[in-house]
This record gives sequence, structure tokens and C-alpha cells, in this order.
Amino acid sequence: MSFMLDARLAADSHPIGDLALSSLRLMDDARFPWLILVPRIAGARELVDLDAGDRGALLDEITAVGRALELELQPDKLNIAALGNVVAQLHVHVIARYRNDAAWPQPVWGHGTACAYAPAAREALVARLRGALRAQLA
Amino acid sequence: MSFMLDARLAADSHPIGDLALSSLRLMDDARFPWLILVPRIAGARELVDLDAGDRGALLDEITAVGRALELELQPDKLNIAALGNVVAQLHVHVIARYRNDAAWPQPVWGHGTACAYAPAAREALVARLRGALRAQLA
Repeated sequence: MSFMLDARLAADSHPIGDLALSSLRLMDDARFPWLILVPRIAGARELVDLDAGDRGALLDEITAVGRALELELQPDKLNIAALGNVVAQLHVHVIARYRNDAAWPQPVWGHGTACAYAPAAREALVARLRGALRAQLA
Repeated sequence: MSFMLDARLAADSHPIGDLALSSLRLMDDARFPWLILVPRIAGARELVDLDAGDRGALLDEITAVGRALELELQPDKLNIAALGNVVAQLHVHVIARYRNDAAWPQPVWGHGTACAYAPAAREALVARLRGALRAQLA
């Protein structure tokens, strides 16, 4: 069995780039700077069931992505979560939250309706995030 | 500055036990088997800002707790999250979710009203979880 990105994750997000373990994607919801990391491990569902090497590598990638968001976007809080109630394929949310964002202080999941990015705004954000992440991984 | 458990976390949860880094507590909401890990690090807010040693130790404790829940309670899914929008003190939720629970497939945060455990039921669950966790950490 080889890894294939879940169809719903693919439809709801845009690729930013591939890290060593995970594909990093931007959720198409301009209300929140909302990234997901999807480890390219066929059949993975639960973080705690990964082997120790993959689990540590995923934590390192979560950390690099979270720090890139902190430095580039100065959020009031990061929200980091592995839920998977709707899409079982293992994916980790890393979200920059602000006290004045559309859902604060509630979590973003299930809150109102996603607001798609204008393509130019999306590409500009993706470019910023790629730069910030390169600096973290350098 | 020495570590002190946040007053709201203390009020909303019951102690299960202290792991090497974190205090493990049961949220007082009988609708969901819902644990929190609170690293005893003064001033900690963001998982990604911990030093590498603490971050790795916390991941190991998340993994042990998640596997204990899987083995003891056979959930359909684990939900693992570090949010902190309401209580900034770093704490990680590890929640056993079921397709027929009160919030499925939504996250538990902000969903309806917590339903406190009857004391005997709470102590029985805490005893089961202590045993399951001891087996994970053995």
C-alpha cells in the first residue's frame, strides 16, 4: 500500500511543500492562517501509533512549522491538533490564532463556513510561509 | 518563578498522577474520557517553544497516555490537541472519542455543558487509567 493524500484533505487545502516526512498544506480558509501536516505514511491514523522515529520526525516538523508561523505572522496563540474524526488519515493542524479572529476563543473546526482565498492572496501567503519555513529548516 | 497549576485547570479537572514531566488530570466531564497533560514548567505556553528535551519528553508522555486510552477504552479515535485560547498555561488534551459520543464528529471544546462525574464513577475510571498507564510506562 503506498501513500495517497485523502481526497477531502486534497480538496480543502493547497500544497505548500514537502518536508522530509510530511506534506505541508494551507487550508483554503482565509479567516485563519491554518496549515496541515500530512505524514506520507500509508495507513497512518493515530499519532501515538507511529513508530518512535516517525513520531519524533513529525514533532520536529510541527515545531518548525509552528515557529515559522510565530515569526512570520505573530499570532496570539498557536493551536496544534491531531483530531481525525472526519478525515481519518493522520494529519496535524497548526493554526495561527488571534484574539480578534472569527472564532476566538473557540477552536476553528466546525465554526461557520470556510472563506476561500483569492488566488493572489493565497499565493502571496504561501510564498511568505515557504520563506519562513526555509529559515526554520536552515 | 516556580510552576503552579492554573486555577481554571485545577477547578475543571481531577488529579490522576504525576509523570516525569507532566501532571496528568481527568477533566470533570463524564460525556468524554478526556485527559490533560500539564508539563510542570513555569511559564510554558507553546509546545513549539519548549526546549528539545522537554518537547520530546512531553511527546513520550502523550504517547503513553494515548496508548493507555486505546488499550483500556478502545475509542474509535483519539483527539490530541494543544490549544490554550482560554487557559494559556501549556496543557495537552488527550481525549478518547466514540462515533456515538455527545459531540461526534465535532471537537469537544465548547460543545454543550460539562456533566460532572459521580464521585464513585470518577474514582473507578481514575483507578482504571492509573493501571493502564502503569502498564504503558513499565
